[in-house]
Amino acid sequence: MDFISIPESEFQERLRKTRQAMQAKGVDLLLAFATESEPAYVRYYADYWPSFETAGVLMSASGGESLLIGPESGTYAAARSQIARITRMMDFRESSQPGYPGSTLATWAEVLGEYAPKRLGIAGWHLIPHTIMQNLQAAIPGVEIFDADDIVRGVMQTKSENELRCLREAARISELGFKAVLENIREGATEVELCGIATAAMLSQGAEATGYPIWCASGPNSTQAISRPTHRKVRKGEVIHFSVGAKVAGYSASMGRPVVLGSCPADLKAFLQIGLDAMNMTIDLMRDGRVSGEVARRVHGWIGEQGYGHTILYGPAHGCGQMECEFPFLESSSTFTLRENMAFMVDVFLADETRGFRWEDGIIVRQGAAEELSSFGRKLNILEV
Amino acid sequence: MDFISIPESEFQERLRKTRQAMQAKGVDLLLAFATESEPAYVRYYADYWPSFETAGVLMSASGGESLLIGPESGTYAAARSQIARITRMMDFRESSQPGYPGSTLATWAEVLGEYAPKRLGIAGWHLIPHTIMQNLQAAIPGVEIFDADDIVRGVMQTKSENELRCLREAARISELGFKAVLENIREGATEVELCGIATAAMLSQGAEATGYPIWCASGPNSTQAISRPTHRKVRKGEVIHFSVGAKVAGYSASMGRPVVLGSCPADLKAFLQIGLDAMNMTIDLMRDGRVSGEVARRVHGWIGEQGYGHTILYGPAHGCGQMECEFPFLESSSTFTLRENMAFMVDVFLADETRGFRWEDGIIVRQGAAEELSSFGRKLNILEV
Repeated sequence: MDFISIPESEFQERLRKTRQAMQAKGVDLLLAFATESEPAYVRYYADYWPSFETAGVLMSASGGESLLIGPESGTYAAARSQIARITRMMDFRESSQPGYPGSTLATWAEVLGEYAPKRLGIAGWHLIPHTIMQNLQAAIPGVEIFDADDIVRGVMQTKSENELRCLREAARISELGFKAVLENIREGATEVELCGIATAAMLSQGAEATGYPIWCASGPNSTQAISRPTHRKVRKGEVIHFSVGAKVAGYSASMGRPVVLGSCPADLKAFLQIGLDAMNMTIDLMRDGRVSGEVARRVHGWIGEQGYGHTILYGPAHGCGQMECEFPFLESSSTFTLRENMAFMVDVFLADETRGFRWEDGIIVRQGAAEELSSFGRKLNILEV
Repeated sequence: MDFISIPESEFQERLRKTRQAMQAKGVDLLLAFATESEPAYVRYYADYWPSFETAGVLMSASGGESLLIGPESGTYAAARSQIARITRMMDFRESSQPGYPGSTLATWAEVLGEYAPKRLGIAGWHLIPHTIMQNLQAAIPGVEIFDADDIVRGVMQTKSENELRCLREAARISELGFKAVLENIREGATEVELCGIATAAMLSQGAEATGYPIWCASGPNSTQAISRPTHRKVRKGEVIHFSVGAKVAGYSASMGRPVVLGSCPADLKAFLQIGLDAMNMTIDLMRDGRVSGEVARRVHGWIGEQGYGHTILYGPAHGCGQMECEFPFLESSSTFTLRENMAFMVDVFLADETRGFRWEDGIIVRQGAAEELSSFGRKLNILEV
């Protein structure tokens, strides 16, 4: 099996583009922050993704960058990092807060002092812990510390050909996970068990991990837009929806599909079809030059006209890349314009009081019709059992 | 299959004990914070664990509690929460930062205003984002906001019989995950694939999830104390170490074992044995009444005497429960006293420049010899292949 990855030169290019954006905005130092469940900003620059601990990437506009990690991840980071300089710091330790007696760890005064920054931008502004912010402020008193998410998002938003290859591969492997579910699902299987089958299939066929904590939501659980699988046994005639996704070289895809075992009640079938039509309409509308909010208003307007407006919770699309769900969100209030090589998960989740479902697939924005990440196709999966 | 869980009455008991501790410390309002990868404090009180979004539990010392969640988790939280009152707030939304036009979300002024707190304690002090802290300060200007981790940790630290049952079951299922590895491992299998096999085995036999992002670290990767599996193929004669753990009803266990395929070089065998002896010594020393730091100093002193002092990075034990690694850490600087019904993972990780390994098993502190969570036993797994 061949495993694709982002070439070293592209990590250099990311740093170069970020420095350019920093200089344009008068930002001399930037700290990108990441956690185990929000690894995007650090993986993007360093290819390192923390576990248990957290991490940061510190970039100077004039050159020089460091990967900042917790006390236990030295050899782990060294084996992964595209950034040569790696610094261990107490502020990135795990939540059990060991003291690591005898360890030599760098202080913020040492780490930031050499740059003597005038302004420190933070990427991951809504993620960075209060205590780290306090320690930053104490180490560089008087220095303005501000939200620099826009700098990193501006660089990340349009995907390179290498990134698109990773996303296509993640989508292909997500399909394999879902196919394993279709081949093994039976009445009485638990939601958790089915997620295990999808996970093993993806990990044995090229995924480095699941793209996020995947789920199966059946029967009454199907109304859950975000979910986690339970020990509930799936049954005939109910909606069983799957959100299954693989991660490849840091890039996460997802596939959302409703499944019905046995016969499908007519009203449920009509509801599922509304979602499928809305999904296809969204994909058709998402083209280079279109204003995002207009797409969302058209799709949600149409769902409303069919009498299902009350079943909308969000969407109908969101960015994807390092995170299965990353900025920007495409919703009726969005104002950004779709541009070629932006990647999205089209994510139509609808639910009434008793049942819900998600259709989800990835696309790449093109001049004309979008390129779909997956060739799997979308149809109502009503399985004879 | 029977699935165990924490009874409703115990969640009530946790709230009661926490209120008692709040009153003793003059804290009138407490906010416990949690994320997808750090769910402990919210799951402990509400049995809810966020995904994509974050969450909080707000408790008043005089009575009344709310589960605070993000905009998309309404039905998910309603299906899980042991706390009846659930409030959706923008501050707990996902990192892609949707705007959710048309949604009605509560503000901090509304949520906190009804309590008119004098002091607001935060549990998860090192996790709570800077931006949420700013919004709290703006909503209740002049109110002291402070680190209240000690209140929650004080309540969580000694485990109930129901919690111990969950931990024993998590350990039993972790064994099944590791056994699946032993049955399926072959030269040429990838680290990722072996983790998939362990995951599927645990999810089909009663785990609700893995206890943490499990890993296999082989050959040069074996020096990594914290790791994630790669596509590297495992080989004969090298160390392949596994950290495999299941989560049951919120409680996470782990099993750490080195494996060698084919024949094991004598010096590696000696090194692995040092770790195993240190592991057994630690377990034997961890008894009610012992001072934690003394245990660590004895064990690390012994490892040093054997000539392996340079291979120590941390430990040799840490709390376990809601998190596979939770407060307190047992290390040479620790001062707490071991008490009956405290639960720990004894975690002996040693590494030199080229190879490393972990022995890890859970224990419950007793008056005499500790109760081991797992009956699997510890031996050098040198497998004929």
